[in-house]
Amino acid sequence: MQDIQALARQIFSNQPFTRHMGAQLTAMGSDHAEITLPIADHVKQQHGFVHGGAISYLADNAMTFAGGLALNGDALTAEFKINYLRPAVGTHLVARAKARSASKRQAVCQCEIYAVDGSEEKLCALAQGMVVPSN
Amino acid sequence: MQDIQALARQIFSNQPFTRHMGAQLTAMGSDHAEITLPIADHVKQQHGFVHGGAISYLADNAMTFAGGLALNGDALTAEFKINYLRPAVGTHLVARAKARSASKRQAVCQCEIYAVDGSEEKLCALAQGMVVPSN
Amino acid sequence: MQDIQALARQIFSNQPFTRHMGAQLTAMGSDHAEITLPIADHVKQQHGFVHGGAISYLADNAMTFAGGLALNGDALTAEFKINYLRPAVGTHLVARAKARSASKRQAVCQCEIYAVDGSEEKLCALAQGMVVPSN
Amino acid sequence: MQDIQALARQIFSNQPFTRHMGAQLTAMGSDHAEITLPIADHVKQQHGFVHGGAISYLADNAMTFAGGLALNGDALTAEFKINYLRPAVGTHLVARAKARSASKRQAVCQCEIYAVDGSEEKLCALAQGMVVPSN
Repeated sequence: MQDIQALARQIFSNQPFTRHMGAQLTAMGSDHAEITLPIADHVKQQHGFVHGGAISYLADNAMTFAGGLALNGDALTAEFKINYLRPAVGTHLVARAKARSASKRQAVCQCEIYAVDGSEEKLCALAQGMVVPSN
Repeated sequence: MQDIQALARQIFSNQPFTRHMGAQLTAMGSDHAEITLPIADHVKQQHGFVHGGAISYLADNAMTFAGGLALNGDALTAEFKINYLRPAVGTHLVARAKARSASKRQAVCQCEIYAVDGSEEKLCALAQGMVVPSN
Repeated sequence: MQDIQALARQIFSNQPFTRHMGAQLTAMGSDHAEITLPIADHVKQQHGFVHGGAISYLADNAMTFAGGLALNGDALTAEFKINYLRPAVGTHLVARAKARSASKRQAVCQCEIYAVDGSEEKLCALAQGMVVPSN
Repeated sequence: MQDIQALARQIFSNQPFTRHMGAQLTAMGSDHAEITLPIADHVKQQHGFVHGGAISYLADNAMTFAGGLALNGDALTAEFKINYLRPAVGTHLVARAKARSASKRQAVCQCEIYAVDGSEEKLCALAQGMVVPSN
């Protein structure tokens, strides 16, 4: 359990794109993971909201880690879908992913992405996808 | 037609996240758009392939522009799904999106994402989603 | 509230395909709906499990009703995705859909489909999609 | 090649749900399949259009067969998404699915569903999903 979480932290810190985004792995468990992204200018689109592509990165990555933890090893997102619910504004985004089911060959995950402003969290996107062992 | 393409170029260049990614709008038509992303270190994951989240950004954004061109105005991606086919390696990625159908309230788009290395293009992801007018 | 639920019952009973499937609307609320399908031979595939297409019908329809109730009027499913988790066996299937978000132009719904055998329920599919007003 | 097509025909004819729908396997190749569904009353919804659930069955099943042919064996749809483009009216529906990519463990397929009325075909839905070997 500790080992797989240590592996997850190591993989996360070894992702150059994750560093480029400025995201942090803020919580983990046996079947879930949480990634937090400060809302800096560089993640915004033309209207000042967070770009959908930045939100989809968060969903993809949070589900990879939730699925990998549930599958107990290095994993990758094979596919996912995302629905955007409202413009994402605030100080940071929090993506919480959970494996709803895990077998040897797949973990099916769901992810909720919240925009946080002070003490208020607003659900701004929902995602669902499949994570598979990476080999 | 020229006007909507000029609007598209302006919106694209006004996206801070797109600049942060280093993407370029490399082709456009009445119902399609192409976005190119050089494969720099900052878009990679832990194994040296392009991070899925960077690919999903490309898909999301290329479909937004294809859909917006088909809808003839400012638009946003309401939802999409993506399947990853193979690890993305090479010198750059090219995302080609096309609106397969457009009505007043939605454009349904598909996007093919290719990894390019020299003269060879390999299909590495497929996406499908809905673009809606932004107001 | 009663009126929209009466409308939902009327629409449900006016669907020839729903009668052909043998499905029943077994619960409703302001933002959710439950549809139950007895597992008869005619909904099975070649291995004796429920056909994925019958499960996808349940997901589609349960989300339409959950979304319609949340939108307070006649509605239709514009798109959805479904992941199958395990073979569906038992005496009947229960699809429980809930609108996670509703605005004027969309309700984003999630649906869990359970295979029921005696007192045991097993999650066998997860779906997510968008429902829109039908006019 | 003949063997896998003969297997496909046998599996198709052994699906009770497919018989209940009245669908026919009308074309096949090494990576594609076509299923045709006459538009009888029993596949309609409350407005006289084909029920989305019947269309999603067609998409699911056509992709299963296209993927199974590409994977060269018995297969199942692990997940898919569908976008509905317009109401489906006419004499029958034709779903044409194609595997866009196939590896040992997945075939990623796309499917176009057309409503046919006389000599006219109208695209009424688009789907994309993953097919996996069934064991």
